[in-house]
Amino acid sequence: MENFILTQDNADSLWKLMASLYPIHRTLVNRGFQKSMEIIGREIPLRITKVPSGTKVWDWVVPDAWEVKEAYIEDMRGNRLVDFHKNNLHLAAYSVAFRGKVTRDELMKHLIWSDALPDAIPYAYEYYTHNWKFSIAKMDLSRLKDPEYTVVIDVDKKPGEMWLGDCLLPGETKQEIVLSTYLCHPSLANDSLSGVVCGVEIFKALSQIRQRRFSYRLLIVPETVGCIAYLATHEDWIPKIEGGYVLTCCGDKGPVTYKKSYFASSLIDRAALHVLQKCRGDRSFRVQEFSPEGSDERQFNAPGVRVPFGSLMRTPYAEYAEYHTSKDDLSVVNPENLLDTVDVLLQILRVLDNNVTYKNKYRGEPFLSKHGLHIPFITTKDAGFLNQVIIQETDGRQDILSIADK
Amino acid sequence: MENFILTQDNADSLWKLMASLYPIHRTLVNRGFQKSMEIIGREIPLRITKVPSGTKVWDWVVPDAWEVKEAYIEDMRGNRLVDFHKNNLHLAAYSVAFRGKVTRDELMKHLIWSDALPDAIPYAYEYYTHNWKFSIAKMDLSRLKDPEYTVVIDVDKKPGEMWLGDCLLPGETKQEIVLSTYLCHPSLANDSLSGVVCGVEIFKALSQIRQRRFSYRLLIVPETVGCIAYLATHEDWIPKIEGGYVLTCCGDKGPVTYKKSYFASSLIDRAALHVLQKCRGDRSFRVQEFSPEGSDERQFNAPGVRVPFGSLMRTPYAEYAEYHTSKDDLSVVNPENLLDTVDVLLQILRVLDNNVTYKNKYRGEPFLSKHGLHIPFITTKDAGFLNQVIIQETDGRQDILSIADK
Amino acid sequence: MENFILTQDNADSLWKLMASLYPIHRTLVNRGFQKSMEIIGREIPLRITKVPSGTKVWDWVVPDAWEVKEAYIEDMRGNRLVDFHKNNLHLAAYSVAFRGKVTRDELMKHLIWSDALPDAIPYAYEYYTHNWKFSIAKMDLSRLKDPEYTVVIDVDKKPGEMWLGDCLLPGETKQEIVLSTYLCHPSLANDSLSGVVCGVEIFKALSQIRQRRFSYRLLIVPETVGCIAYLATHEDWIPKIEGGYVLTCCGDKGPVTYKKSYFASSLIDRAALHVLQKCRGDRSFRVQEFSPEGSDERQFNAPGVRVPFGSLMRTPYAEYAEYHTSKDDLSVVNPENLLDTVDVLLQILRVLDNNVTYKNKYRGEPFLSKHGLHIPFITTKDAGFLNQVIIQETDGRQDILSIADK
Repeated sequence: MENFILTQDNADSLWKLMASLYPIHRTLVNRGFQKSMEIIGREIPLRITKVPSGTKVWDWVVPDAWEVKEAYIEDMRGNRLVDFHKNNLHLAAYSVAFRGKVTRDELMKHLIWSDALPDAIPYAYEYYTHNWKFSIAKMDLSRLKDPEYTVVIDVDKKPGEMWLGDCLLPGETKQEIVLSTYLCHPSLANDSLSGVVCGVEIFKALSQIRQRRFSYRLLIVPETVGCIAYLATHEDWIPKIEGGYVLTCCGDKGPVTYKKSYFASSLIDRAALHVLQKCRGDRSFRVQEFSPEGSDERQFNAPGVRVPFGSLMRTPYAEYAEYHTSKDDLSVVNPENLLDTVDVLLQILRVLDNNVTYKNKYRGEPFLSKHGLHIPFITTKDAGFLNQVIIQETDGRQDILSIADK
Repeated sequence: MENFILTQDNADSLWKLMASLYPIHRTLVNRGFQKSMEIIGREIPLRITKVPSGTKVWDWVVPDAWEVKEAYIEDMRGNRLVDFHKNNLHLAAYSVAFRGKVTRDELMKHLIWSDALPDAIPYAYEYYTHNWKFSIAKMDLSRLKDPEYTVVIDVDKKPGEMWLGDCLLPGETKQEIVLSTYLCHPSLANDSLSGVVCGVEIFKALSQIRQRRFSYRLLIVPETVGCIAYLATHEDWIPKIEGGYVLTCCGDKGPVTYKKSYFASSLIDRAALHVLQKCRGDRSFRVQEFSPEGSDERQFNAPGVRVPFGSLMRTPYAEYAEYHTSKDDLSVVNPENLLDTVDVLLQILRVLDNNVTYKNKYRGEPFLSKHGLHIPFITTKDAGFLNQVIIQETDGRQDILSIADK
Repeated sequence: MENFILTQDNADSLWKLMASLYPIHRTLVNRGFQKSMEIIGREIPLRITKVPSGTKVWDWVVPDAWEVKEAYIEDMRGNRLVDFHKNNLHLAAYSVAFRGKVTRDELMKHLIWSDALPDAIPYAYEYYTHNWKFSIAKMDLSRLKDPEYTVVIDVDKKPGEMWLGDCLLPGETKQEIVLSTYLCHPSLANDSLSGVVCGVEIFKALSQIRQRRFSYRLLIVPETVGCIAYLATHEDWIPKIEGGYVLTCCGDKGPVTYKKSYFASSLIDRAALHVLQKCRGDRSFRVQEFSPEGSDERQFNAPGVRVPFGSLMRTPYAEYAEYHTSKDDLSVVNPENLLDTVDVLLQILRVLDNNVTYKNKYRGEPFLSKHGLHIPFITTKDAGFLNQVIIQETDGRQDILSIADK
């Protein structure tokens, strides 16, 4: 795999995609998710696998579609205090339909807010609870002075199709490196969406690279149940996975963070650590050990799949204040950081792709002078030393990444 | 294996056994050993393997029986200065018969005393030397003022049968966990006897436990030659031994000491260390590396047998002042410490017995909400985290003890 | 292999050989090399493999013979400023023939000197460059005041035979321990020649030792191309090589230095380290990790041969000031240091030869009293402890060197 030079065009392109996707209301199964996929499909060729609601996928079941027509809270004078149409985070995902008057006490049981960020609307979901919740900025609680409120949640929950997107770039071998992203969050920029946008830009770059040893696949799916649905509907594919990375939280200003796979020292891990440690000058980075929490690396590393899957982030979810609130907006991310993440990933993929195991054809030492490679003794610490190292180590047992790390 | 709650009854029962066995004169092969076995046989079902004197057992030979009728030293006025019937430690085990007058100088060559404990009678043996020796308290040496003494050693050494006792509690599998104890010492409480008493109490408890995965075997034999005789007469049994522990010095007030097996990190070792490190609060304990000295763990760990065998003690032999003297009496041990040692052992056996290797039936992550196990993200550090760890690690390759220690 | 006691005779013998070989002009292929081999052949039985110039040996080709009749530089008054017959280091090895007048500027391009040692003539070679060079002491540059000089290089470069010497001492097995030395340097004492002289003395000693488990082979060859020629003409031999050591820089006053093989912990390495760490009291020594620079250990460790080969030196080449100059003369080496190096090597070979893997015939513990080996408990820290260790560890899996190092 040859080098790929990223330019300002790449920064412009990924930022344009980010800006167009950000406002859309997405959840596990809804029109917003499908519309987002259609937008992405104009950037790279996407194959969509549509899985009907109710389909059993391993231990899980594909949920119904959930569409919001309107959702609001009005006080006794008809002031609309909370309105889904103003911010799609106001209504917890998969809240059940409701229409009626509730007392202030009753209402409070259905409200969620953030004590830490009084002006932020938290992201909430009620996927499997048959409940309804509104999210609200804590500072707006003071506006709830009436004893009674009108609550309207006009939602439609009915069988639909979960959309699972992938983009495959075939290489010389059928073994695949996978980048996994999730698109099921509503208007959140760094969590979820930044990974999708970087993944798309990486695949636009990869498609222009002439020589690929591995095949590469980008997944764009709903988190957890979507990833499991993809795996369950593509079981034959699993043995072809060499490994991969989950991309999320890729656009903030923090240093790059690599979360190791369950295997900790797989090729996937060694390539990522090599780039962070050796190819980025003295730019700081962080490394996390594998833990069974996190995003869809859980599914890939889990027993029954067990392929090495790391996660590439800048500031990890739950470590930045704006995470899972309305504050995780376009001001948290910027094109430069997104592009830097794309660059790190492309370097990692190049290390992976170019990593081969050589066995030199010589017995003993080759006649370097004949090959024009002999270096006088006095300078052997540089080029000559390197020649010697290469000769000694290319024994058909060690890949070049191991030799380089030595 | 379910939990077993020890009560005061257990303390009473083991102390009663200790008190009844302590006064009896035992050696490798004699009536005292057999009588002790008969007393134990009233507590737990014992199978006795009787091996005739002269039987070749691997590199060794089973010794003759040795019975003492009387043994004393009298001065010229007929004062009986040393008398076996006052303390059975006075005569070195397997001393040859003798009757006659000896000079003071000659007598001194046949006396053993302890410089460190002037009022203690040391434990001595002349198993393979065809010699005779009396043990005496150093402070009593001053009573030997006469130039001549009458020595009477009326002993009977003739072919008999070495008794090897075992108690087997069958479990779901034929693989056995072995507790090995030795009963060949005369009136010594902590060394030798405390291990027998704890072993018996453990087996009384185990017999009341309904579910045992492993089979369990208690050995009560003469040390070294008896253990070798047992192994040599049960060679087919060796492959069934999963491992085990020697019990000795179990009743003193010191902290529990675990001496590792030759393998150092076998299941036997991991279970013992797990209990000492994780299941006993901040109670102190000591760990010793394996060394080829010690008790019958030597035989089990040796080439030709090579099964992992640790040793569980409180203060190890040779580290407490009273060791191998008449001071190692009932005041060195007490029911509380003996019961605590029983408790440690039962915990270790439970860890061993319950240690299995699970392979969960899921691919990827199970749908925890469906199973009522989902824990909101905010609390995942506790129960949710644990669920995830269990899911990730139960891959059919690691036993649960490894996962717990992780 | 029994012990061999070195005496003053050995010191005398190796010094005599050193003194007789030192003055001879040697290079890869010339009469001086052959004459040196003939001298050595009077000390130990040498087999000579003669490989014609032009023979392809793996990636290399055997060079032509190169003989010097005369070589000098004269100034305009006929003063002979530089003369090969005064010091054979003056002419770079394999310089091409030349006869004519050259300007001072032109001459300077063909001169080599050492800035660090102004009174030393550096050792230079032009094996594959078709050039000519004179080496000169820097302080003699001031004598070059004339504008023009007469240069005469009367050399004869034509097909000949490269001589490869070996001496085999057969042992009980066909597996061989190899000592590799190189003889292709002109009058240099510590680099190259000291290794040959020590190797010869070691083999004189080995031939007097009655019991050898391994077979032993001494190689005396031109460095690099000669070693490769030997390997290429004896490919069937390679699988018989257990490992070995390159000997060079063996006579200076520095402490012994061991450079590890590529394998780092092979038997070859363990034996050398055992002797340096455990058998030489508190005499200092140094250990170097393997690096692909150095001498013929490169060929043995390289892919395609890959047998463990260490290097035994005192002060390593390039670490002593006189290295590769006329100062590396008989004053750098002395008989005591050479003999000490011989002693170290003989100890290492004895450790290798005596290293076997025992499996004791016992199951459990043998009856030490019967074998007269029982040691009372009180002294078990010494002999008894040792007995027990030996019994526990001789399980047929560990060689005695491992047990000793434990």
